[in-house]
Amino acid sequence: MSTAEPLTLYVVIAAGGYGSRMNSSVPKQFLPLNGKPLMVHTLQRIHACWPDALFFVALAEEHFSQWKKLRKKYLSQLNITEVKGGATRFHSVKNCLRHLRKPGIVVIHDACRPLVSKELLQRCLNQALRTGCAVPVVDVQDSLRELLTSGSRHRSRSRFRLVQTPQCFDVQLIKDAYQQTFQKEFTDDASVLEAAGGIIHLIDGEPSNMKITTPLDLMVAEKLIAAFPGPE
Amino acid sequence: MSTAEPLTLYVVIAAGGYGSRMNSSVPKQFLPLNGKPLMVHTLQRIHACWPDALFFVALAEEHFSQWKKLRKKYLSQLNITEVKGGATRFHSVKNCLRHLRKPGIVVIHDACRPLVSKELLQRCLNQALRTGCAVPVVDVQDSLRELLTSGSRHRSRSRFRLVQTPQCFDVQLIKDAYQQTFQKEFTDDASVLEAAGGIIHLIDGEPSNMKITTPLDLMVAEKLIAAFPGPE
Repeated sequence: MSTAEPLTLYVVIAAGGYGSRMNSSVPKQFLPLNGKPLMVHTLQRIHACWPDALFFVALAEEHFSQWKKLRKKYLSQLNITEVKGGATRFHSVKNCLRHLRKPGIVVIHDACRPLVSKELLQRCLNQALRTGCAVPVVDVQDSLRELLTSGSRHRSRSRFRLVQTPQCFDVQLIKDAYQQTFQKEFTDDASVLEAAGGIIHLIDGEPSNMKITTPLDLMVAEKLIAAFPGPE
Repeated sequence: MSTAEPLTLYVVIAAGGYGSRMNSSVPKQFLPLNGKPLMVHTLQRIHACWPDALFFVALAEEHFSQWKKLRKKYLSQLNITEVKGGATRFHSVKNCLRHLRKPGIVVIHDACRPLVSKELLQRCLNQALRTGCAVPVVDVQDSLRELLTSGSRHRSRSRFRLVQTPQCFDVQLIKDAYQQTFQKEFTDDASVLEAAGGIIHLIDGEPSNMKITTPLDLMVAEKLIAAFPGPE
């Protein structure tokens, strides 16, 4: 029998997107937030929580040179492997997962959620260590309607949850799930695991852990990052 | 045959809540936002759009004295009738609707959505004039899960919409709908009209038209109100 090896902690950052909703030629993950590119905040926060984590960042190929500059300037202390992004978030994450060789936990996070807290990261990891899966969710604050073939119908918001990242998984569990054929329904990793028959464990997310997809979101994040500061 | 009378424009403001999510002894609609109580912003914006509208404000009885002070200070130009709030939003709105005597359109709006724009108000009214009903919605930006008796399942966010106010209706149509028995599912006016068999007409809402229910929301609104200023 082999000696038990400590579990490896991997972090996969999905940053392959073009940010068409941002009305900007700069992809949203590179836009400045309090003077630093958005995804630099994201990576620095996770690194401050887990200094030994191994990072895999999925990027569109045309962003590699821009990325290398900011990596050198801000992220030299992180252990990062760049991975070529795919046509969708699913394909980008799948490309990253291929590089994960050892048993452990993988934390999959959106580049554009820079306000993630240490508490949420830790809560997510703890749950994944217990059950192999952790998916943070928050309540729906507004009334909710479901579109029908014709018209729409009211749905009880108390029966729904909005899903965030980080989503944490046992490495082998999520790698196996990503072997299945792509469906356009796969907007996050929980949906991939669910389609493969996995059990989804929900944990409390954070309303402040917003995804930045529009100029309005960026404006809001500038306010919030002052109230929820990360590492320098 | 009688001469056609111009349609009356009514505005119902649901401000009966206690704001338990705000961790504040001051109800959220009275909290200061850029130096003015939150619901003063809301009412001033609507008044700037429709100077002749008749306002009905549903308030908890214990807030009447506080309300009278701010009405005198900020809202003396508005035609406002105070109405006693009920046990729920449904009952508060119903109490207001009782006072609407003439044919027309009623705009029902949350006191705690102070960032509503003139464009959205006008779009809502125009749709209600055409079809008797207008309900603004925005896309769901995050992945969405539905809670089941055991566990949860992924739902396609593209098939759902988050509902905002103002919701605009033909007066008689919504008064009739409010005659039905209360259900705890009635979190907005569209759900009441739908349960009465009415057809719901969706229009584009605005991501900036947020509902303020937590201290975090208030912080965000302080940022946004500078970017989307209302009348002085």
